[in-house]
Amino acid sequence: MIQKPTIPKGTRDFLPQDVARRNYIFDTIKSVFKMHGFAPIETPSFELSSTLMGKYGEEGDRLIFRILNSGEKMKRADLSALQEDNLPRFANSLSEKALRYDLTVPFARFVVQHQNELTFPFKRYQIQAVWRADRPQHGRYQEFFQCDADVVGSDSLLCELELIQIFDAVLSRFNLPGFTIKINNRKILTGIAELIGESGKLVDIVVAIDQLDKIGKEGVITELENKGISSKAIVAIQPLFDLQGSNKEKLDKIAVFLSESKIGLKGVEELRNIFSLLDKIEFNHEIIEFDITLARGLNYYTGAIFEVHAHDVKMGSICGGGRYDDLTGLFGLKDLSGVGISFGADRIYDILKELDLFPKYLTEGLTVLFVNFGEKESEIALKLAVSLRANSIDCEVYPSPLKMQKQLKYANDRGVKFVAIIGEEEMKLGKIILKNMESGEQILMDKASFINYFKTTK
Amino acid sequence: MIQKPTIPKGTRDFLPQDVARRNYIFDTIKSVFKMHGFAPIETPSFELSSTLMGKYGEEGDRLIFRILNSGEKMKRADLSALQEDNLPRFANSLSEKALRYDLTVPFARFVVQHQNELTFPFKRYQIQAVWRADRPQHGRYQEFFQCDADVVGSDSLLCELELIQIFDAVLSRFNLPGFTIKINNRKILTGIAELIGESGKLVDIVVAIDQLDKIGKEGVITELENKGISSKAIVAIQPLFDLQGSNKEKLDKIAVFLSESKIGLKGVEELRNIFSLLDKIEFNHEIIEFDITLARGLNYYTGAIFEVHAHDVKMGSICGGGRYDDLTGLFGLKDLSGVGISFGADRIYDILKELDLFPKYLTEGLTVLFVNFGEKESEIALKLAVSLRANSIDCEVYPSPLKMQKQLKYANDRGVKFVAIIGEEEMKLGKIILKNMESGEQILMDKASFINYFKTTK
Repeated sequence: MIQKPTIPKGTRDFLPQDVARRNYIFDTIKSVFKMHGFAPIETPSFELSSTLMGKYGEEGDRLIFRILNSGEKMKRADLSALQEDNLPRFANSLSEKALRYDLTVPFARFVVQHQNELTFPFKRYQIQAVWRADRPQHGRYQEFFQCDADVVGSDSLLCELELIQIFDAVLSRFNLPGFTIKINNRKILTGIAELIGESGKLVDIVVAIDQLDKIGKEGVITELENKGISSKAIVAIQPLFDLQGSNKEKLDKIAVFLSESKIGLKGVEELRNIFSLLDKIEFNHEIIEFDITLARGLNYYTGAIFEVHAHDVKMGSICGGGRYDDLTGLFGLKDLSGVGISFGADRIYDILKELDLFPKYLTEGLTVLFVNFGEKESEIALKLAVSLRANSIDCEVYPSPLKMQKQLKYANDRGVKFVAIIGEEEMKLGKIILKNMESGEQILMDKASFINYFKTTK
Repeated sequence: MIQKPTIPKGTRDFLPQDVARRNYIFDTIKSVFKMHGFAPIETPSFELSSTLMGKYGEEGDRLIFRILNSGEKMKRADLSALQEDNLPRFANSLSEKALRYDLTVPFARFVVQHQNELTFPFKRYQIQAVWRADRPQHGRYQEFFQCDADVVGSDSLLCELELIQIFDAVLSRFNLPGFTIKINNRKILTGIAELIGESGKLVDIVVAIDQLDKIGKEGVITELENKGISSKAIVAIQPLFDLQGSNKEKLDKIAVFLSESKIGLKGVEELRNIFSLLDKIEFNHEIIEFDITLARGLNYYTGAIFEVHAHDVKMGSICGGGRYDDLTGLFGLKDLSGVGISFGADRIYDILKELDLFPKYLTEGLTVLFVNFGEKESEIALKLAVSLRANSIDCEVYPSPLKMQKQLKYANDRGVKFVAIIGEEEMKLGKIILKNMESGEQILMDKASFINYFKTTK
């Protein structure tokens, strides 16, 4: 016997119900992006390796899926690299293209390449798959979707405001019982590193602090020690982990701490301005929280950073984002400030499923199934199906005159709402039996009333 | 200077206008699929190599994009294969996964893998990207989308009827000036091969005839000669290229030709039954044509085959499809007959663009842009933007108080429909100037009328 086929680890098939639910998430996010003036773009699934490699750190490079050169090009395999155990160089000799690892770097490439066709500030959204050669594990996939919105070409904090409004609008539409938008500013973290005399180790500090949620205060301290941060600096930094009070109070305290750091105070000012903009539109302050320990691992952030967490579920962040001052600089276009956010569609899916928040209509099946009683009877059904579809009612005629029981089982399995029965008797009478599959109710009607029934209840 | 970045040959970036137009095509096709009871599925972008390799012939195998194994697995490179110039074996040693080449083979794999979760007959549609390492050239891409609908688990000709109805419904919605659905039956071609004594060379004959459109009658004859088809057989086959008359007349003539071939006559009967079903629903016969030279290159077809051509444009087929009796047999599930069709979204895109058939609303820009005159004025704009969005009107506040002219240029470039102006004067009056960007008309209104204006004209 042939073995049942399967798919690569870390990938998924989506059955009709999954697709409907995923599209509900994507469509909700899209509609909010659009409502705020963002327009969609799409980029190719694979980019030139040179576009992606070296942009995500060493770990990122390892996780990029590369496409094997085909044909004669394979002969360029660098065998000396293989002998020397230099696998990255060996890979480079075998591959010129790589699958997208995220949407941000391709977007930066896109902006530079198409700069003369775009209107700045350019507001784009992009909902596409990305691929990572991560070890597959629960809730982590090798192929997954990102839903990003970015504004490039403006350093106005109105952009940050707009993105916070989008977080709120999207997550409110999903009817989540509660969520918190965490906000911090990279300049504040830079200021802290400066003040404790460890400016050169900002990235290490950020990466360590970023794990506070996962490894706790003690873990972060150990991590900082391992990275060679002085014990004096570690002592100086610790009070920041326990900052208490309202957003305003916490900002005031941090401003005192940073009073000698120009860049740190700039960060505080930016956050104060964002909170003041939120006040102006009477934004619900309870869902936004200044969190000095929020760091976001990515190197390119330079201003505000965001992360959103859902309440009542055990799950990491469901959205993230931040401001970057020079992302397009990677590709030669300098000084184009931007800010962007990303929704984690897979995690949102898991939460909506866990909390049973998907709308019921998503899993509704076909509206009308015509039972097939043979050639003559089905002729009437085929014609009625044409009329129903002309009225935008989805329907089908069962393809063969099997036993009625079998056809009704099919209707049940497919979640069909109405079954239309035209047997010999009904044909003679010029009538149709319409059976409501939920209530079991049956009505005998003529053709005109049948069409009309769906026209009016649509 | 850094060189402007670029993308791999044969791939494309899509700007907002492109995305809107492509989504119009996909959404139209989806809505018709849904109207006929088809439900969406999605499969991973890459499959195990063993799932794809060997399913598309030698040429197909060469065009499959393979994913390079990462990390230590690269050390399994089969260097002896490289030395022996056996590149396929060398590739196998470096790769275990491959990008989807079409949607049909992954669908067959999906049906077998999920057979216990599906309701048969299973009607699915699937709209996803596929990848082929074709030499990039005009209109041929390495990444493109297929839009497929298939019914598996029924050999009823009602399925063929339904798929023909779908061709008609989709292409009518696109307002194409004209199109022809060509239909033939593989059993007829099998019968012909049998009768001319060349049964063993059916594939060669099919491949040759398939090119009649491109290389003409003489070209096909040369091709047949090259494949070693006897000159007697070639003479016997030729009259078929010039079959004249209505579909019915042509079928009658071919029935005479095939009177000694059981399988050939079965093919004729199937086609007659399909035409009779089309009569029953009063289908427009002028758009469907029995074409004995239609062959469809793919090996797995066993019954009806389809191809659709648009009039008034120089372009190959825009849709295709056919019945296959044992596609899932590849993966161990025997005797599951199916029939499917595929829309060529990229070609349809090119035609709609060439004939200027895209609806105008697709390229409409943002509905309202609020001009930014500074902190105080923009506070009013920000609040009004919240109200507009609550009424499902898309809008944005320009992020910085630049010169009005610059903001209006942005509005123009983005195709904004209305600009809302709240300067110092208007702020004092509690009013808003609403400027229609198309007509240039300006109206001064209060906040309530402003919101109301969009509520009612939406």
